[in-house]
Amino acid sequence: MDILEKSSRLRQWMAEKEIDIYMIPTADFHNTEYVADYFKVREYMTGFTGSNGTAVFTKEKAGLWTDGRYFIQARQELAGSNIALYEMGEPGIPTVLEFLENELPEGGVIAFDGRTVGVNDGLQYEDIVEAKKGEIIFDLDLVGAFWSDRPELPCEPAFLLPENYAGESAAAKLIHIREVMAKEEVSLYLLTTLDDIGWLLNLRGNDIPCFPFVLSYLAIWENTGILYSDERHFDGEILTELEKLNISVKPYDKLYEDVEKLDSQEVVLLDPAGVNYTIYAHIPVDVIVLKQDNPLAIMKCVKNPVEADGIRQAHVKDGVANTKFMYWLKNHPDVSSLTELAVAEKIAAFRQEQELYLGPSFLPICAFREHAAIVHYAATEESNVNLDSDGLLLTDTGGHYLNGTTDITRTYVIGHISDEMKAHFTLVAKSMLKLSNVKFLYGCDGSHIDYATREAFWQKGLNYNHGTGHGVGHVGGVHEGPININWKRGKKSPTAFEENMQVTDEPGIYIEGSHGIRLENMLLVQKAEKNVYGQFMCFETLTLVPLDLDGIAVEYMNGEEIALLNAYHQKVYDTICPHLAAEEAKWLKKATGNISV
Amino acid sequence: MDILEKSSRLRQWMAEKEIDIYMIPTADFHNTEYVADYFKVREYMTGFTGSNGTAVFTKEKAGLWTDGRYFIQARQELAGSNIALYEMGEPGIPTVLEFLENELPEGGVIAFDGRTVGVNDGLQYEDIVEAKKGEIIFDLDLVGAFWSDRPELPCEPAFLLPENYAGESAAAKLIHIREVMAKEEVSLYLLTTLDDIGWLLNLRGNDIPCFPFVLSYLAIWENTGILYSDERHFDGEILTELEKLNISVKPYDKLYEDVEKLDSQEVVLLDPAGVNYTIYAHIPVDVIVLKQDNPLAIMKCVKNPVEADGIRQAHVKDGVANTKFMYWLKNHPDVSSLTELAVAEKIAAFRQEQELYLGPSFLPICAFREHAAIVHYAATEESNVNLDSDGLLLTDTGGHYLNGTTDITRTYVIGHISDEMKAHFTLVAKSMLKLSNVKFLYGCDGSHIDYATREAFWQKGLNYNHGTGHGVGHVGGVHEGPININWKRGKKSPTAFEENMQVTDEPGIYIEGSHGIRLENMLLVQKAEKNVYGQFMCFETLTLVPLDLDGIAVEYMNGEEIALLNAYHQKVYDTICPHLAAEEAKWLKKATGNISV
Repeated sequence: MDILEKSSRLRQWMAEKEIDIYMIPTADFHNTEYVADYFKVREYMTGFTGSNGTAVFTKEKAGLWTDGRYFIQARQELAGSNIALYEMGEPGIPTVLEFLENELPEGGVIAFDGRTVGVNDGLQYEDIVEAKKGEIIFDLDLVGAFWSDRPELPCEPAFLLPENYAGESAAAKLIHIREVMAKEEVSLYLLTTLDDIGWLLNLRGNDIPCFPFVLSYLAIWENTGILYSDERHFDGEILTELEKLNISVKPYDKLYEDVEKLDSQEVVLLDPAGVNYTIYAHIPVDVIVLKQDNPLAIMKCVKNPVEADGIRQAHVKDGVANTKFMYWLKNHPDVSSLTELAVAEKIAAFRQEQELYLGPSFLPICAFREHAAIVHYAATEESNVNLDSDGLLLTDTGGHYLNGTTDITRTYVIGHISDEMKAHFTLVAKSMLKLSNVKFLYGCDGSHIDYATREAFWQKGLNYNHGTGHGVGHVGGVHEGPININWKRGKKSPTAFEENMQVTDEPGIYIEGSHGIRLENMLLVQKAEKNVYGQFMCFETLTLVPLDLDGIAVEYMNGEEIALLNAYHQKVYDTICPHLAAEEAKWLKKATGNISV
Repeated sequence: MDILEKSSRLRQWMAEKEIDIYMIPTADFHNTEYVADYFKVREYMTGFTGSNGTAVFTKEKAGLWTDGRYFIQARQELAGSNIALYEMGEPGIPTVLEFLENELPEGGVIAFDGRTVGVNDGLQYEDIVEAKKGEIIFDLDLVGAFWSDRPELPCEPAFLLPENYAGESAAAKLIHIREVMAKEEVSLYLLTTLDDIGWLLNLRGNDIPCFPFVLSYLAIWENTGILYSDERHFDGEILTELEKLNISVKPYDKLYEDVEKLDSQEVVLLDPAGVNYTIYAHIPVDVIVLKQDNPLAIMKCVKNPVEADGIRQAHVKDGVANTKFMYWLKNHPDVSSLTELAVAEKIAAFRQEQELYLGPSFLPICAFREHAAIVHYAATEESNVNLDSDGLLLTDTGGHYLNGTTDITRTYVIGHISDEMKAHFTLVAKSMLKLSNVKFLYGCDGSHIDYATREAFWQKGLNYNHGTGHGVGHVGGVHEGPININWKRGKKSPTAFEENMQVTDEPGIYIEGSHGIRLENMLLVQKAEKNVYGQFMCFETLTLVPLDLDGIAVEYMNGEEIALLNAYHQKVYDTICPHLAAEEAKWLKKATGNISV
């Protein structure tokens, strides 16, 4: 069935059900960053394969909304589909909401699978429909009804994260969360975000690519709980553990029925940013719902001492893998024979050699020359190029280990590069190191200290259009809220840094059609001195892989910047060297050698 | 009448009126930073002379709440008064609100002069009283009723700020504000903050010390307006101007009557942060009130090109006055004969010599040695000391000129100072200059860039417990919102910098019992380049007075910092030199000479 046929099939169904507009967002039922194939409904219906997009079908029109990363790709992939591309954020382009307002006839019907729509979005659709005296149908997965070769819902084996890695038992975590529930005077906490459920129960899985968790919902009462998930995920040991926690397992879908039957005495806590609209809409109207930021998010974000130590150890392993890769690349006898995809595979192979390695923490970015100027470039068989000329190679990759999750970006010099590239490389390197060396008073958040990273860029009239850093989970999501490092603040007040929060530090520069440079270390928030002025905080650098000195032009650095680079390289050498073969170690000595003016 | 007698007199009245609690804040009817003597009711009733404090009397108890600046002073001044000191912010000390909650009996009555209470505070008192099923009486100035020698309400002559200084006519400004009113669909804009009224009408006065405005309220309708103010302020020219604007003058107090009689068709815009509770409470319940940040504040904060040029010129005058003072001080044959108060007078005298000078923009701070460690120190006859030993002298002073307002802090070396003091002086100097040299993307506010100033402090585990900078009015309030420079954000979202906003840059270091150093330049926000990354912004330095090189230890500066200082001094020399006598000019050459490692 091609896209045109699918569209016509969808419209046939819409006509039968008297639906005016059918919406297909890109999401699973848990607002997960990456989605399993089962949930790729928007891709199935439009042919557009990007990671972000919303498709909207009316009786006559069809549109796809996506962001700037995907304009070119979407234009190509939508060709001949009769689906118009709506370039989000471009002048004159209506938003999805504006489109709905314009297209919905008086008394019309909007439908979608409410499990793939967030509560806040759903409430906005309600407003539009109300104004038109129309109706919402939110329990219709029209596409699912005719997608015959739809992949199965994933159901990979789950596993327990042992307490020597997790640092705290699920029982203890449940006590904390029930204290919050008591304080907020709620009887039921509905938790639907997969990493939060996994963190709370010390449970991991493989249902979603790069996101080691189990498709499930969790309902927590004062003394009991229900985990809604396909029981085939769990072996006897897990079931025993859950039983000890007084948590029973019910089928994944059963949640919706149970929510509909909630007693009117219940007071429910849920986070509208994580819970889907169908769940919310199923809650009986006489049940009190406390909509609030997920209280577990901040507990998960502050790593406990065992997690923090595991993270340090995981970074030694990851440092060894990446340093070995760097040795392999920088000493390769025939670099021009390598491709972007081959490089990505090689990094994965070096990680695979490390103990406790589980798998990639996100899809690797390996981008050569002008490809690296595309911030979210992912090499495909079509785009893949050989490293067959001078230029810069950017690799942004990460791994899950049983004791921690990593995320590292390095940019490597292949052959000869221009003075401008060296100036840019040096700018990125010194800015990245500067942030890792900041000290600040307790109370600061990422919007306060981002200036430290961007200062050298802004002084030269340069910038990068992405955040400087994001939180990272522990054997969890590689992008984990609520912390970040970005001068631009969102609607929510930024979260101040606490000891043992984990964050990335990744400035970059992107020159379209020419080159891209990004350097990324991971940092752990630590306490510095406490004195009459208050508690000072600082960062411990976790990532231990050399910065390619072939990119450094020392004339663009002052004494303090040189000292920071040398100190970082000394630490890399001291920590990584013992894990290397003799030849590698000899090379590392040089690759981390002191530079001076 | 001593304090005990006054208290007993007050309680007698309270008993007659059946009042349980009477509150006396420190405020005039306009939420003005400085208050005229007429409004110093709290000082009259408690003997405490500090600039911030709230007195609360119950039938048996009396308390005074003030902040950390005034704990020592308040303890002394309250001795023997039977008024307890409540140290605000200290652990275990109840807030005023908590005290009211505890002390108000069921069905009790709280009274205050609602003209001295903000709307938001008043609403909080309402909540407390409601919970106790009590009552608020807000139109009782009990103290005023028996304060026989109370100073008169000030009524100094007003004057028009000519358009060649104001840059825009009152008529034009009224058009802007009426556009906002039309957009917000309000019929009446109630404006009660004195600097806003003065800015809007290009009207200045002398009713309040250091704050060149006229006691008044302003009501603006679509085509007309009423200025509520004692008519004796205004000469015929001003009255003619007001008439041209279709603004009539009514007695100051008449506002309250008029507000009570507002037609129910009116829709009123007011800023609850500026308007007093009595006004708000007088508005008939069927009138719609739009409570909103004062829309005029941001217009006033962005200086127009004429204002900006005037400000530059005022700073040349002020630079000449301060540089002449510095010459006088640094070359004084007998410094030990000088006192803090004498120094303050001398600075004022040098300003007095300058054209267009109107008067001080705030009470001067001249503080020697350990006095300078007290951030808000104001020398009195009792505290005044001679500069009769080695040490640092801090002067924080400012002036109003017909074309602008200044605020400058310098710290001068008297005799010999320690290496630590030099290290501190150098730290403050380079941090102050660093902020003045930042470049940032449009959208940044003062909480983003404060890191630039504090970085060198925080790296050493140091800090200063005040903001780095505040907005400054044009022939207006020396502390003018909504902008500031401070990493600590308040409840309101910080305001992004726009071209021609004016802000101070004043880091400092305060070592209790030893020394205090603050250096303050004023800055004007300017546009830098606009490119693919967006619009960059930067600062132009307004203040032109040397930093005392006797305090600088060049070994604590890197090359960029030295270059910044030398460039600043070159600019000071080039601009100020032509206005000096030969001897002064010769000295300035040396005082602004290049330093190097």
